[in-house]
Amino acid sequence: MEVGRGISSNRLICFLFVSVYFEVSIFAHGRLLLEKKPDPVNAAATARWLVSLNSWGVLSTISSDMGGAPFGNVVSFSDGLPSQGLGVPYFYLTTLDPTARYALKDQRSSFTISEYPIGTCGSTDPENPTCAKLTLTGKLKLVDRHSSEAEFAERALFSKHAEMKDWPKGHNFKFFKLEIEDLFLIDWFGGPKPLTLDTYLHPTMNQLASMV
Amino acid sequence: MEVGRGISSNRLICFLFVSVYFEVSIFAHGRLLLEKKPDPVNAAATARWLVSLNSWGVLSTISSDMGGAPFGNVVSFSDGLPSQGLGVPYFYLTTLDPTARYALKDQRSSFTISEYPIGTCGSTDPENPTCAKLTLTGKLKLVDRHSSEAEFAERALFSKHAEMKDWPKGHNFKFFKLEIEDLFLIDWFGGPKPLTLDTYLHPTMNQLASMV
Repeated sequence: MEVGRGISSNRLICFLFVSVYFEVSIFAHGRLLLEKKPDPVNAAATARWLVSLNSWGVLSTISSDMGGAPFGNVVSFSDGLPSQGLGVPYFYLTTLDPTARYALKDQRSSFTISEYPIGTCGSTDPENPTCAKLTLTGKLKLVDRHSSEAEFAERALFSKHAEMKDWPKGHNFKFFKLEIEDLFLIDWFGGPKPLTLDTYLHPTMNQLASMV
Repeated sequence: MEVGRGISSNRLICFLFVSVYFEVSIFAHGRLLLEKKPDPVNAAATARWLVSLNSWGVLSTISSDMGGAPFGNVVSFSDGLPSQGLGVPYFYLTTLDPTARYALKDQRSSFTISEYPIGTCGSTDPENPTCAKLTLTGKLKLVDRHSSEAEFAERALFSKHAEMKDWPKGHNFKFFKLEIEDLFLIDWFGGPKPLTLDTYLHPTMNQLASMV
């Protein structure tokens, strides 16, 4: 029994070491470093990978002029400088478009992206659960234009969407962000992956903690 | 003045002839025949082209378990056999997924697609108005499984998404359709294109009528 316990402890230490090494190689200070598709078992890494590599998605808000119907709109986004995303999507929207107008009346919204446009689903159908998809649900909020967060949003968006800096000033584009409350990730069979906001935003510390 | 009228009449006849020829070459019995991107001036043709060539989009419903937030979900769809679409999107959904569950409680929904995944936007940003996007808003309805419409939906979906026919029977997939009430199309500068449901569904007759 003592020998058994010794082997078990060594195995645990070895497992923790490999796990720590693996996690550090994926995340550093909450930033995603890998560009290869993560193992579907790692829900946080998969979700962050989807957000990091996609350039556009569908932002859904509650319509105030169509009987409260959900209104999905194609938008570009960014969660940070290329390969340095932090997981929170920022947008550059004008109130000439209904999405920004709706959000200023009712912040409830969701943002949806797919693995399909990244090109790694191959011949798998976009609705097949192994072709990953992510829906972030929360509140779509205007970013204070004089804040350091607005500076971050500008760098994040303009570095991935170069033409945005030349979009018409008269259209009154503003920075918005999705304050995430819930995550819905499908990246394999068996239904949505359990994934908390905290694990998504701070994956390294949480995942290490859950291994102990 | 008489001469002027004569020239004007000849021009009108010539214009109508060319227009009829052009429209017939795009649509036949409400079906889209062209695979080339239509002129952005032709809103109905552009919208139908987007629906015909895309294989997936984001279907948004009202969540019943997240405070009524709009919930966008990646889904595959089809509006008919390849190159024979009729403009109405059909879906193959299971109530294991929240979208179908939400729709059975509240039919309000929208379906959003982009030109970007078709590959014709080039280096243009996905949010640039010249990279077309379409949102169909309406009611997401279950199709009666014993109806001829269910047979149409099956042919439409399985012809474009071959693996669907092998999806697990135990998951209880069912056919749904979006009963369209409103169209939001951006395909150029200047805001959304005026486009009625009737013009979208029956473009040839309506567009000819509007020229007279």
